Amino acid sequence: MKFIHFVLLFLIGTVSFSCGPQNSSTTTPQSGSQISTAFAKGEKVTNDNFIGTVWLNYLAETDTVHNVNIGSVTFESGARTNWHYHKGGQILLVTEGKGLYQEKGKPIKLINKGEVIKCPPNIEHWHGASPTEAMTHIAIGTNTNIGGAVWLKPVTDEEYSTS
Amino acid sequence: MKFIHFVLLFLIGTVSFSCGPQNSSTTTPQSGSQISTAFAKGEKVTNDNFIGTVWLNYLAETDTVHNVNIGSVTFESGARTNWHYHKGGQILLVTEGKGLYQEKGKPIKLINKGEVIKCPPNIEHWHGASPTEAMTHIAIGTNTNIGGAVWLKPVTDEEYSTS
Repeated sequence: MKFIHFVLLFLIGTVSFSCGPQNSSTTTPQSGSQISTAFAKGEKVTNDNFIGTVWLNYLAETDTVHNVNIGSVTFESGARTNWHYHKGGQILLVTEGKGLYQEKGKPIKLINKGEVIKCPPNIEHWHGASPTEAMTHIAIGTNTNIGGAVWLKPVTDEEYSTS
Repeated sequence: MKFIHFVLLFLIGTVSFSCGPQNSSTTTPQSGSQISTAFAKGEKVTNDNFIGTVWLNYLAETDTVHNVNIGSVTFESGARTNWHYHKGGQILLVTEGKGLYQEKGKPIKLINKGEVIKCPPNIEHWHGASPTEAMTHIAIGTNTNIGGAVWLKPVTDEEYSTS
């Protein structure tokens, strides 16, 4: 397994988030005025645990002191995670746009900027942008001393289109 | 001890954060254009663990599943926490403005929008706004199964003015 695969395998929930000061990012909304968001989009994700265009900015590295990791993740419209679960759970804070969240066997839920989602440990789920609008969330992996993300199958277009 | 005192005593690090969807807030910056921030300012803090005007929006309640709690805290210019420490540690994500952070025996550090600060367990410290500008951070209390915040003396004007 190449190093980059190893790193990205654990993208949400397991991983080596790099800690410390982050630069602010500035985006230009449709109105033409400038909105300065708190955290940069980060690096484009290139692994197979996601469909579509996804960006990741590691905010806080996993350590054995705090037992969490934190990343800001931006999904362009149509992009989403694969199905997965977290051994220690995860909390999502939606900071921009509109997205989707679904736990296995439950309906897809529309999630909006300002919403908070708790993903309990070992519950299979996926999350991503809406079909027409990007979504950014801060993802907080919890109880990382127990374990991180376990990645499963992609969310098919059929599964996604039911949204 | 009145109930409100009990609740506010544990403001950052211990407490009953109310979970679930939050409304977005909209503020009007000096330019006159609108910036829509992800999380509302919440309720004005009225307890004695802070100096100045401070607002708190609980984002995620403490639970025994995730072992964290999350709040967005806004300090108006000059406002700050008392000296305190967290039995389980805390991570701060600065989402707006300019603020200050100091650990006992170390210099005061200027913190800006986009920065991430890890406060290790049992390290006495304080944080707040700069003297001239407000600051908002998301505060993530970690290892809440171990314990929460322990509040100490106020940060005097003399201590604060050395910034």
